[in-house]
Amino acid sequence: MKNRQWVLAARPEGEPKPETFRLETSELAEPGAGEVLLKTLWLSLDPYMRGRISAAKSYAKGVEPGEVMVGGTVSEVVASSNPNFSKGDIVLSFSGWQEHQLTAGKELQKLDPKAAPISTALGVLGMPGMTAYTGLLTIGQPKAGETVVVAAASGAVGAIVGQIAKIKGARAVGVAGGADKCRYVKEELGFDAVIDRRDPAMHEKLAAACPKGIDVYFENVGGEVWDAVFPLLNTFARVPVCGMIAHYNDTELPPGPDKSTRLMRAILTRRLTLRGFIVWDFAEQEPAFRRDMAQWIRDGKVKYREDVVDGLEAAPQAFIGLLKGKNFGKLLVRVAK
Amino acid sequence: MKNRQWVLAARPEGEPKPETFRLETSELAEPGAGEVLLKTLWLSLDPYMRGRISAAKSYAKGVEPGEVMVGGTVSEVVASSNPNFSKGDIVLSFSGWQEHQLTAGKELQKLDPKAAPISTALGVLGMPGMTAYTGLLTIGQPKAGETVVVAAASGAVGAIVGQIAKIKGARAVGVAGGADKCRYVKEELGFDAVIDRRDPAMHEKLAAACPKGIDVYFENVGGEVWDAVFPLLNTFARVPVCGMIAHYNDTELPPGPDKSTRLMRAILTRRLTLRGFIVWDFAEQEPAFRRDMAQWIRDGKVKYREDVVDGLEAAPQAFIGLLKGKNFGKLLVRVAK
Repeated sequence: MKNRQWVLAARPEGEPKPETFRLETSELAEPGAGEVLLKTLWLSLDPYMRGRISAAKSYAKGVEPGEVMVGGTVSEVVASSNPNFSKGDIVLSFSGWQEHQLTAGKELQKLDPKAAPISTALGVLGMPGMTAYTGLLTIGQPKAGETVVVAAASGAVGAIVGQIAKIKGARAVGVAGGADKCRYVKEELGFDAVIDRRDPAMHEKLAAACPKGIDVYFENVGGEVWDAVFPLLNTFARVPVCGMIAHYNDTELPPGPDKSTRLMRAILTRRLTLRGFIVWDFAEQEPAFRRDMAQWIRDGKVKYREDVVDGLEAAPQAFIGLLKGKNFGKLLVRVAK
Repeated sequence: MKNRQWVLAARPEGEPKPETFRLETSELAEPGAGEVLLKTLWLSLDPYMRGRISAAKSYAKGVEPGEVMVGGTVSEVVASSNPNFSKGDIVLSFSGWQEHQLTAGKELQKLDPKAAPISTALGVLGMPGMTAYTGLLTIGQPKAGETVVVAAASGAVGAIVGQIAKIKGARAVGVAGGADKCRYVKEELGFDAVIDRRDPAMHEKLAAACPKGIDVYFENVGGEVWDAVFPLLNTFARVPVCGMIAHYNDTELPPGPDKSTRLMRAILTRRLTLRGFIVWDFAEQEPAFRRDMAQWIRDGKVKYREDVVDGLEAAPQAFIGLLKGKNFGKLLVRVAK
């Protein structure tokens, strides 16, 4: 049996390019004792993957050249000699960028296709949704009447951050790229205001959209949005630091002046809290997250949008586009139907 | 009755200079109904005062040119028509840089001269001690076996930070300026290691003194010490941001490259917590602080050192020296005996 898989061809300098990845075909054995053979149905593409193919030390082991690209997946069990799984089961897996995986199954979670569309286990009901939930509620701690700002507001995490902020009674202000995304964030997701990050007057418009300043900034992009947010942060503002997508392709430090001392002084005089996190730091919140999020979706308080590309071969281009903000909603590869 | 007082002559550009301040003599009235007339015995000089005479917005109202310089004081009641205070009472006051003050007395706290030397109400048992206590324990949260680093380690706050770290079972590493201070920090205060900030090999020596990295960095200086600390911060390290004395006299941002994005990425990948505070954010901890600190002093677990200059006229030069690290211990002006 053949298995196609994307491996890391070479670590990228700056932006990943098509030649960063290489499509390989390998032979798959039948499942040995206790093993499960999975067929990938959905592959999740997420910004954190840029960190995994960088040489810089990060929170997780990186992908070495020649290794299969990592990634969350929803898969179907096509053969099993593991008593916990049967042919036809749908599972949340971490198979990576490949069509099949043989696994001992310890990391798999069974999904109930009747409870929710199975792809949501990679989005609103999965890692991105829980990232928004844990970071916003545990670090951001928005209170009624406060102002919460999030960028990439039509994306997998940002969209959920703003909607949870609304549920908690806060004012939700989004930043998104382009008129279509902005319209979606305001009209479909119900944010109080949205700013186009390409607008030359972005700084002024963000200030106008936050007349009482910013109490929580959920940081997932960095760059120009951070520069616009920074002067608006109120005393005691909280900044969950979740991502820096504007900088993942940086090959050197930006030119001066050095703004880090200004940042540290602002942390002091405005008594800011900046705290980095990854979702698994809050693993113990998973049951609460699942319960709350499922309820909010049923109540129509949380909406989500998926951006689907077809076929495993499309993964590299889709991922490269993700780092430039080309996706519109949670980016997924439909590897098989 | 005459009262001498230092007023702010002009906001300094960069380093304060003698001409930043002006000594004035005014007439003092007798206390009116409910008022107390104080004679300043001790005036505390502290780094935060640099912020008060800057034009930049900070956490407290600044001193305007022509106004008396602010400051914590220990004073004697020399006349009173307030039933709560009697002639001869010793009080903690906020009279500022002057020999006398007329006040309605609401802010005064009576001190018991038998319980502790009255000057300690401005140091180890006062604002600087409580700054160390609250910032380290509430934000830093040192655990047994962890490594705590603090600069200005012979100073009013740093000395207490390291000693509390030791009480909590952590490894205390100090940075101080010059051989005398370093010897004091290690031999008298019992820090596990101390680095001279003037040592050209400061970065390497700090790394060697922290073989398991840094879990808590109590930030009160910024500058070169921060640059040395930054690469050593462990995953989940906590950074209470209390002061930035190396930058208080800055007139512009330092030259590039811009290290702020590297800082934000480190917050993300190492899941750091940086949080600014001032002591009054934790006002509710004052009883616990007083109880614990008094006990630790009695038990010989916390030692302190005062650096005393004589006479109100010496205040400006002493303060200018404080910003350059010329003091050795808690800096106090003995205004009257």
